[in-house]
Amino acid sequence: MTVELDTGLPSTRLMQGFLREKQAVEIKLTTGDTFTGTLRWQDPLCICLEAEGQAVLLWRTAIAYVKPA
Amino acid sequence: MTVELDTGLPSTRLMQGFLREKQAVEIKLTTGDTFTGTLRWQDPLCICLEAEGQAVLLWRTAIAYVKPA
Amino acid sequence: MTVELDTGLPSTRLMQGFLREKQAVEIKLTTGDTFTGTLRWQDPLCICLEAEGQAVLLWRTAIAYVKPA
Amino acid sequence: MTVELDTGLPSTRLMQGFLREKQAVEIKLTTGDTFTGTLRWQDPLCICLEAEGQAVLLWRTAIAYVKPA
Amino acid sequence: MTVELDTGLPSTRLMQGFLREKQAVEIKLTTGDTFTGTLRWQDPLCICLEAEGQAVLLWRTAIAYVKPA
Amino acid sequence: MTVELDTGLPSTRLMQGFLREKQAVEIKLTTGDTFTGTLRWQDPLCICLEAEGQAVLLWRTAIAYVKPA
Repeated sequence: MTVELDTGLPSTRLMQGFLREKQAVEIKLTTGDTFTGTLRWQDPLCICLEAEGQAVLLWRTAIAYVKPA
Repeated sequence: MTVELDTGLPSTRLMQGFLREKQAVEIKLTTGDTFTGTLRWQDPLCICLEAEGQAVLLWRTAIAYVKPA
Repeated sequence: MTVELDTGLPSTRLMQGFLREKQAVEIKLTTGDTFTGTLRWQDPLCICLEAEGQAVLLWRTAIAYVKPA
Repeated sequence: MTVELDTGLPSTRLMQGFLREKQAVEIKLTTGDTFTGTLRWQDPLCICLEAEGQAVLLWRTAIAYVKPA
Repeated sequence: MTVELDTGLPSTRLMQGFLREKQAVEIKLTTGDTFTGTLRWQDPLCICLEAEGQAVLLWRTAIAYVKPA
Repeated sequence: MTVELDTGLPSTRLMQGFLREKQAVEIKLTTGDTFTGTLRWQDPLCICLEAEGQAVLLWRTAIAYVKPA
């Protein structure tokens, strides 16, 4: 759990691009829940999304897909 | 399983903040169960939530998201 | 798979406490199945629960939560 | 994937006991499928069950629980 | 992800046997989808099944069971 | 998370083949969602699919199968 985020990966860079550009994204979880918002940050365990004015901490292991909203 | 919790990660620190401030949080599991309560502690395997007066040990592998309640 | 159970983790110790005190616990799996019983032992792969007079071997990867029954 | 099965673990030994004694077991998967049969062998990736006269290769990652049938 | 397939494991060898003998197999995924076909090859990430005249790349992490069809 | 994609694996090469040939593929996730499109790139964490004119970042851990569309 001391793993680092590989910032050279295309997926990490695409997510960083969405973050910098405040691109609205839709994230679907394996529970079937879908969140729409902008990315605040990502780390090796979670993705923090700003949705409806609050931070939602999405567990990476539960993410199914991310796409521009 | 002797992994340690990386206390420098943004997600770990956000959770520690919720814990210190006794912020009520909503945690949804991949089963679809949602728990609302305050965090007692977190370790590499579990998150311990105080909900309805008792401790609930949530397996990290089953967590979908955490957000302020 | 030669991993050892980290007996210093709060979650492992809480489970050991439930075991020693023969505390009835409710364990829900990601299948939606819920078992109520007392803990017999835990190892890195499984949790052995005594439920309705027989041993049930619960896979850790399928556990969603554990709480006092 | 060159991991070995830790034959010293209580869970591995309990499973080996079921195997040796040809104890009928019920195995439920995370798909909700339940198989009843006797164990043929186990390795780090799979559990091989003899059910209705044929071998079924159960993926460990999909197992929820095992109990005497 | 540079892991190798442990060809000495009983499960790997059983699968290789199905492949060599062109044994029709039924593979169920954790999505509930069931595929019937013959194995083309297996690697550490996937199992390639020939089903209805085309190759289907099944993710190992999504496999629940494999059995002779 | 600094793992590299093993480009020698049959599954990685098959996916690279689909990508080069702009072969339309159908990808099903463990959520039950199915996407049809062409592959843009793959990395150790994700597969990027071009579907309906936009990029969709599919988490590898949520993929069930890939097949030609």
